[in-house]
Amino acid sequence: MKEQIHGGDVYRHPDVLDFSANMNPLGTPESVIRAAQNAVRHICNYPDVRQQKLKTALADYEKVPYESLICGNGAAELIFTLVQAVHPKRAAVLAPTFAEYEFALESIGCQVRHVSLLEKDDFELKSVQDICDEVTAGADLICLCNPNNPTGKLISREMILDILNHCRKHHARVLLDECFNDFIDDPDTYTLKQDFREYPNLFILKAFTKRYAMAGLRLGYGICADADLLEHMEHCVQPWNISIPAQEAGAAALKEESYVHEARILIRTERDWLKDEMKDLGLKVYDSKANYIFFKGPEDLDRKCLNNKVMIRDCSNYAGLSKGYYRIAIKRHEENKQLINAMRRQRIWRKRS
Amino acid sequence: MKEQIHGGDVYRHPDVLDFSANMNPLGTPESVIRAAQNAVRHICNYPDVRQQKLKTALADYEKVPYESLICGNGAAELIFTLVQAVHPKRAAVLAPTFAEYEFALESIGCQVRHVSLLEKDDFELKSVQDICDEVTAGADLICLCNPNNPTGKLISREMILDILNHCRKHHARVLLDECFNDFIDDPDTYTLKQDFREYPNLFILKAFTKRYAMAGLRLGYGICADADLLEHMEHCVQPWNISIPAQEAGAAALKEESYVHEARILIRTERDWLKDEMKDLGLKVYDSKANYIFFKGPEDLDRKCLNNKVMIRDCSNYAGLSKGYYRIAIKRHEENKQLINAMRRQRIWRKRS
Repeated sequence: MKEQIHGGDVYRHPDVLDFSANMNPLGTPESVIRAAQNAVRHICNYPDVRQQKLKTALADYEKVPYESLICGNGAAELIFTLVQAVHPKRAAVLAPTFAEYEFALESIGCQVRHVSLLEKDDFELKSVQDICDEVTAGADLICLCNPNNPTGKLISREMILDILNHCRKHHARVLLDECFNDFIDDPDTYTLKQDFREYPNLFILKAFTKRYAMAGLRLGYGICADADLLEHMEHCVQPWNISIPAQEAGAAALKEESYVHEARILIRTERDWLKDEMKDLGLKVYDSKANYIFFKGPEDLDRKCLNNKVMIRDCSNYAGLSKGYYRIAIKRHEENKQLINAMRRQRIWRKRS
Repeated sequence: MKEQIHGGDVYRHPDVLDFSANMNPLGTPESVIRAAQNAVRHICNYPDVRQQKLKTALADYEKVPYESLICGNGAAELIFTLVQAVHPKRAAVLAPTFAEYEFALESIGCQVRHVSLLEKDDFELKSVQDICDEVTAGADLICLCNPNNPTGKLISREMILDILNHCRKHHARVLLDECFNDFIDDPDTYTLKQDFREYPNLFILKAFTKRYAMAGLRLGYGICADADLLEHMEHCVQPWNISIPAQEAGAAALKEESYVHEARILIRTERDWLKDEMKDLGLKVYDSKANYIFFKGPEDLDRKCLNNKVMIRDCSNYAGLSKGYYRIAIKRHEENKQLINAMRRQRIWRKRS
């Protein structure tokens, strides 16, 4: 049976406050819910295989050509589809990072190499050398996540461009997951979106899931200048992969620009507040730039939080991590206060003197 | 860009009566629409990766163990996932049949062999010899569709058991698509469901899409006794492939037993009526047992019908067929009358004397 190894298992724990999945803290916009509900009236039809309305809105929103877009049943589907189309023999992923890259690569029998992010560097990527070495040694695909999940650490555009240039020379591709880019303070400084035309070996992954808090409806997309790759990807997946409600909700969501802006401001304020509170509790807090915070604490903190009706993400099943590492989503202030109170109630660690 | 090569393109032709996609003629049950709409309220969560509520209801409905079920984002996703997991080097499909088997097989570089259904046999499978020969010659996977799409012809249980036994001997698998079984007069006589435990090499494919007219929401499932295969399939796909609305709608749909029964009665009556009318118009009508009718007519009939605001399925892009073959869905009587009237208005073929 499928096991829930990521965050967000509100089904086993329906009555808790969920800090284990990283959504937009403002919740799903009402316009998105209405669009999806209205679309349900039309489910007796097949979805539009061309996804015309959605992709037209998306091209306009992202200011990229329609032809450079591909949609998926969530960003996660696109990871599998990309891997199936590229079919790398060897690939490199960061450790720790989002586990689905590795799972997708393993599903096609690809040899996966880990590029370790070190605790002594606060899990920040300090140099592109290890990654470039993997490319030189024959990796066909490099998976990057920026900001990285679960650490919230950023990789600079310059470093990613170095990797892209080296990959281009060696005919390797880069999957660049920017699903959490929308929540950092300066998205434009870090996205590689303005460079995708220059690098046909670059596949940028984005999601509606997090940006509009609609993970349950499944909608993600990719931006890539390699038309042959996108066509190949479309041959690796059924034609009706995006449901009618997801297509309609997606088109509605793209109009919610001020909502994304407001979320970013809320996240910045709450991130600072949470970090201070958590440090005050004696936790080792890494300096996340994303809408979640990565930290180290007592080994049974997740269980104790759950006893206090708060669910946090135990990160011990990430490659490169062990027991005691956690991630929390940044939510609204009232909710964040509940998290801090639940942690404080444990009194299981010393206050810093 | 993705092209719409199947039926159901109501997006290019929004103002026509669609006979090109084969849904339950009664439309989506209100209970299913309500369940999906209510579920939309919860899309800020990830879907349940265990699909517990849906699979429990499904196990009860199908009277099979929970562990023998796998759900997909539509039956079409399961075709791709099965093919990715089995990774056959060589496979055999009927011609004509539903095209997605072949597309999925080609996407992994599998050599696809056609077993031709002949016009002289009214496109009925008369013997299992050709299929068994393909297995003997090394095919790892046989794809069967029963009733077959687009012909509506049935393969007897005895023939399928012969194929299964031969496949078992040669370590080959059978994908048996029973998505339209619910609409034939005697589903229990033709389904292989009661035999799946005996044949771990059998994968039975079913869909909510057609049975409950919910193609736009995407939900299909498979029944198989090979736990290792199901586990392997789950590793070839993201964990969140079934959206929350699809899981909730599916669970609600399974309670609609009388609705399926009523549809079956309606289809039987209307199928007879339509066949008689179409024969009366001079069309060559094949004896479909399904909720659609396969026939031969003038080469521009689809275009002429479209001029009369009725869309039929041009079947010339099926392997083994050419211009002049069509398929229509069986709908409610008033709609079926509109179809016959649209055809009659053309007066492009002789009435039989």
